[in-house]
Amino acid sequence: MPNRSSTRITLRRPDDWHLHLRDGAMLRAVAPHSARDFGRAIVMPNLVPPVVTSEEAAQYRDRIRSALPAGSRFEPLMTLYLTEATEPSDVARAYMSGVAQAVKLYPAGATTNSHAGVRDLEKVRPVLERMAEIGMPLCVHGEVTDPEVDIFDREAVFIDRVLRPLRRRIPDLRIVLEHVTTQDGVDFVRDAPRNLAATITTHHLVINRNAILAGGIRPHYYCLPVAKRESHRIALVQAAVSGDERFFLGTDSAPHLDSAKLQPCGCAGVFSAPVTLPILAEVFAAAGALSQLEAFASLNGPAFYGLAPNEERVTLVKGEVWSPPASIVTDEGPVTVFDPGFPLHWRVEEAS
Amino acid sequence: MPNRSSTRITLRRPDDWHLHLRDGAMLRAVAPHSARDFGRAIVMPNLVPPVVTSEEAAQYRDRIRSALPAGSRFEPLMTLYLTEATEPSDVARAYMSGVAQAVKLYPAGATTNSHAGVRDLEKVRPVLERMAEIGMPLCVHGEVTDPEVDIFDREAVFIDRVLRPLRRRIPDLRIVLEHVTTQDGVDFVRDAPRNLAATITTHHLVINRNAILAGGIRPHYYCLPVAKRESHRIALVQAAVSGDERFFLGTDSAPHLDSAKLQPCGCAGVFSAPVTLPILAEVFAAAGALSQLEAFASLNGPAFYGLAPNEERVTLVKGEVWSPPASIVTDEGPVTVFDPGFPLHWRVEEAS
Repeated sequence: MPNRSSTRITLRRPDDWHLHLRDGAMLRAVAPHSARDFGRAIVMPNLVPPVVTSEEAAQYRDRIRSALPAGSRFEPLMTLYLTEATEPSDVARAYMSGVAQAVKLYPAGATTNSHAGVRDLEKVRPVLERMAEIGMPLCVHGEVTDPEVDIFDREAVFIDRVLRPLRRRIPDLRIVLEHVTTQDGVDFVRDAPRNLAATITTHHLVINRNAILAGGIRPHYYCLPVAKRESHRIALVQAAVSGDERFFLGTDSAPHLDSAKLQPCGCAGVFSAPVTLPILAEVFAAAGALSQLEAFASLNGPAFYGLAPNEERVTLVKGEVWSPPASIVTDEGPVTVFDPGFPLHWRVEEAS
Repeated sequence: MPNRSSTRITLRRPDDWHLHLRDGAMLRAVAPHSARDFGRAIVMPNLVPPVVTSEEAAQYRDRIRSALPAGSRFEPLMTLYLTEATEPSDVARAYMSGVAQAVKLYPAGATTNSHAGVRDLEKVRPVLERMAEIGMPLCVHGEVTDPEVDIFDREAVFIDRVLRPLRRRIPDLRIVLEHVTTQDGVDFVRDAPRNLAATITTHHLVINRNAILAGGIRPHYYCLPVAKRESHRIALVQAAVSGDERFFLGTDSAPHLDSAKLQPCGCAGVFSAPVTLPILAEVFAAAGALSQLEAFASLNGPAFYGLAPNEERVTLVKGEVWSPPASIVTDEGPVTVFDPGFPLHWRVEEAS
């Protein structure tokens, strides 16, 4: 149990079970922000070209390690981008050798750099069956890409059209429904056996779709899956603070250059890594559930992935209101930092 | 009845019953586009500062006329921006003298430059009662501004919270529910007495909210009221092609500099005036209802406003696919033209 009072809370160092670190100059700019606060992160493989093979994952892991500050103990946990050409043997090799902890399923076209994703789940069935045998998790971007389906329905429709049939066909496959955004998703996870979990992002705990569209359009609040109406946000907060071990933090922190967030890309993604822990402290404190923060951020994730929680501790301290930087600088331009829209009182205490 | 075949349709010159012409350089850039295709337009008064008094409306009308091409017969029909300080006598004078055809109600904060709008409808009751007496229409931006209300619910909630009580209190007031975007709005108008009508925009007949948010965020499709899900778009098309005299064209063409559409304003508004008639021809032809286009664009509006339809005719001709300009140039920068996302075959035939 964390040591806590109304103004301090100490917990095992959190991990981020869904993170985009990019590559090159962007990687070098953003990796230190995750390394500062988190012990480990599941690193998403949607580079251009994507990280598909165990060899590519090992190389990407090396580049990430090179981008970390000297002495950092941050550990990148790699994922493989599932394609219809992925080999079951390569996936198993990556998992058994510790190169990759999971495979990421992107329905083709669902989000940033997902063109190489999966169109027909039958084609990857041998991979998924092999993963079920060895206990390797499948991380799922849970949205259909059917243009006929309303953008706000795409998670719920994915659950019905894809996840329920997949669960029936391969019930032993361990699945993480990534960045769940709906009451439907929360209910689906709650009602499922324990080998199905969900990550919840920082920003989906904080904003609803009004933040994107009311009184002006705000690309910096735009991500995929897109934030839904307030009742869904409340369902996510309730799941996060419940202590239920099937819900854990995955920030989906996903930096884009400001120039790309606007035109012509209109890219999906919110950069929240630098402010996630202070924001989570506000959210959990407001829910009267600070004591559950450690479960959500530090315990449930490793338990699902079969890893020990971090031994290190971090302390969050409540004090005067402070303002995080509006953006960080990269060699290629600024990247806006997620603004929760409420004042922050909590900070991560610097190691003395 | 229009003279029509599958490739030509001649109809009375359309009017635009909801138009933003702005002022200064923007007015000079956009007015010719409306003047080219339309006979008249109800010009919205949300300048900075807004057009509140009959004198301000007369001056704004003069500036619009000065911005028209030489020889243009385009007629701006002026509106007064309703504030809680508006005088019933000034409104009546503007209407009786022909300076203004309508009053525009903006709930404070609902859209671009609506800060001066109405917070408490009781405060403008004497104005509304005077308008009911003299038959002057009230044009309503039908969205609540309550931040607790989901952005996609704001029209339906406005109907229940504001319009239904207003109809009960002043049943003789002639009302136009501007830029209706929902099945709820369509049903409300259909079920009401004949002194309630609605305008429908070009873009709400064409796009649903996926156009703004699926696979990238697209500020150039963002307007207020925001486009809703597909079932609502279909309800709007059905109302437009039905021939029901209570539905007529109001483009809500609302130019913003591209620089303002992006950051920091994220301004609401779509600039559709240059392409409205070709788009409408596509939409009505696809619905098998080209014969209803004249009612929607040229007859129902003047009937509601108690004006004669235009005597002039325009002819739309179907031919090869053509591409409208992506943007127009103003002295202050480019303004993106609404892209319907489908090929255009119809054009307005140039006068020979």
